[in-house]
Amino acid sequence: MDNNMHDLIIIGAGPAGLTAALYAGRFRLKTVFLEKTGVGGQILMSPTIDNFPGFAGAGATQELIDKFRKQAEDAGVAVVLDEVLSLKEGPGGYELETRQGRYSARSVIIATGAQPKRLGVEGEKRLTGRGVSYCATCDAPFFKNKEIAVIGGGDRAIEEAIFLTSYAKTVTIVHRRQQLRASKILEEKARQSPRIRFLFDTVAQEITGKDRVEGLMVKNVATGGTELLDYQGVFVFVGIEPATGFVRGFLDTDEAGFILTDENMQASRKGIFACGDCRKKGLYQVVTACGDGAAAAASAQRYLL
Amino acid sequence: MDNNMHDLIIIGAGPAGLTAALYAGRFRLKTVFLEKTGVGGQILMSPTIDNFPGFAGAGATQELIDKFRKQAEDAGVAVVLDEVLSLKEGPGGYELETRQGRYSARSVIIATGAQPKRLGVEGEKRLTGRGVSYCATCDAPFFKNKEIAVIGGGDRAIEEAIFLTSYAKTVTIVHRRQQLRASKILEEKARQSPRIRFLFDTVAQEITGKDRVEGLMVKNVATGGTELLDYQGVFVFVGIEPATGFVRGFLDTDEAGFILTDENMQASRKGIFACGDCRKKGLYQVVTACGDGAAAAASAQRYLL
Repeated sequence: MDNNMHDLIIIGAGPAGLTAALYAGRFRLKTVFLEKTGVGGQILMSPTIDNFPGFAGAGATQELIDKFRKQAEDAGVAVVLDEVLSLKEGPGGYELETRQGRYSARSVIIATGAQPKRLGVEGEKRLTGRGVSYCATCDAPFFKNKEIAVIGGGDRAIEEAIFLTSYAKTVTIVHRRQQLRASKILEEKARQSPRIRFLFDTVAQEITGKDRVEGLMVKNVATGGTELLDYQGVFVFVGIEPATGFVRGFLDTDEAGFILTDENMQASRKGIFACGDCRKKGLYQVVTACGDGAAAAASAQRYLL
Repeated sequence: MDNNMHDLIIIGAGPAGLTAALYAGRFRLKTVFLEKTGVGGQILMSPTIDNFPGFAGAGATQELIDKFRKQAEDAGVAVVLDEVLSLKEGPGGYELETRQGRYSARSVIIATGAQPKRLGVEGEKRLTGRGVSYCATCDAPFFKNKEIAVIGGGDRAIEEAIFLTSYAKTVTIVHRRQQLRASKILEEKARQSPRIRFLFDTVAQEITGKDRVEGLMVKNVATGGTELLDYQGVFVFVGIEPATGFVRGFLDTDEAGFILTDENMQASRKGIFACGDCRKKGLYQVVTACGDGAAAAASAQRYLL
């Protein structure tokens, strides 16, 4: 519980929030740093990372996050575990209601991240990071010459399937309907690839494998027939959900709930900034989240000047 | 010399270009990576860095750059030392003329960086990184309780001077004219700070000190009198020059030459992207350059799809 007026409240302690905290600390802003569950965010779903610059080789994501956290703490901003329930205007700035109290601040950085939608099938959770992936940009190189399935039929699924052919031996697009939702140009491109196959009218029922993905149990929705197919990887692209429920209606978002900002991370209300995976942007990666976080803190600092 | 058509040419091997190369390699784009002088960019002006997330404590910038470079090489993209002289449209994409040959590519990422304008006075070069700085966001914490001079009178100089008061004991703004160029609101804010002093009609003539900055020799342009003042730090904010001369007139830039892009790094010609310090944006830091580089490579990959 803290009823003082702060310069800044940062919500969410993934890579974006941790970098914002590092910069806010260096800017000497009086900052509260709130995190609902645990420091790190969705990157911890992947045990290793090899595309964060400066973190050479396939390093442990936990180690990277521990470094981020230590840097923010060294700059004077430590994480408080508490969940934000609501955000509204208040005298001189904004008021946050949390599970354990209330906070007031002149500015707010939202870095609450996003979660890929899960299929919700047996084996999916257990094998995540062990052949089940939600990010081709992150994980494609681990699937060199492997046979993999891509689940989904939208633009993202088809784009990622095309990209995965640079590594995988075959990529089978598994889609529940008879036609893709993706744009025609992407579909044509995918159909031209000798490595891409299609399974229409088909849903995933179970992902199988002991320590790593070995197969996918699928069901044909037209015939009702089931079949166990051999794959060493399953990429799931059935949507992404930003953790922005607490600001819907208060800030401008797109239809899916991603917060709209300008390039300096300014959201639709002055003094509120959004960064990382919870905002609408072109590339969702740890390094872009960190860049966003630094930019958000600099914008807050300039706003508070 | 290479006359084949490439997917992508990346120009400049600072943090933005190196991250773009890492991602381009992972995207399996057929990439040429050109650098004029040496890998690293202007960050190597600072011997240490402590605000790059994941690179804990005050680490050596050379070590960070070596890691960036190794990651790009491991992803299959190595630097070629060659200077780009011109960029123009060509059959199927773009053509680059370099000091040693010609290259063609369907897309181009410009990551040529920028240089702060130097004063050009005695002692400045020798003491850069030893008390002479061109970036308060980067270096302010090294000047706790020190007496420092800020040279310049524009918005950036005054913003940085105000920020530096969070660390420094006193900040003296040294400006060659009788009035600031900065906006009134910033000037008022600066005048309210008990730690900020002003020296108008004054130019720097020499920065003195053996191993670190010890003083600043100034000259009053009205009276012609000179004086040696004690400072432990000199921050120079007299402008920034992007290394974009070879694209002026070909791409849209602002007055100072920074390349205009959208949020996905797309410049004013399709298939050309700009990232890092050479593009117009809100915060110029290593981590934002890296975020830019990843986003530029992803945009190029999507463009080439």
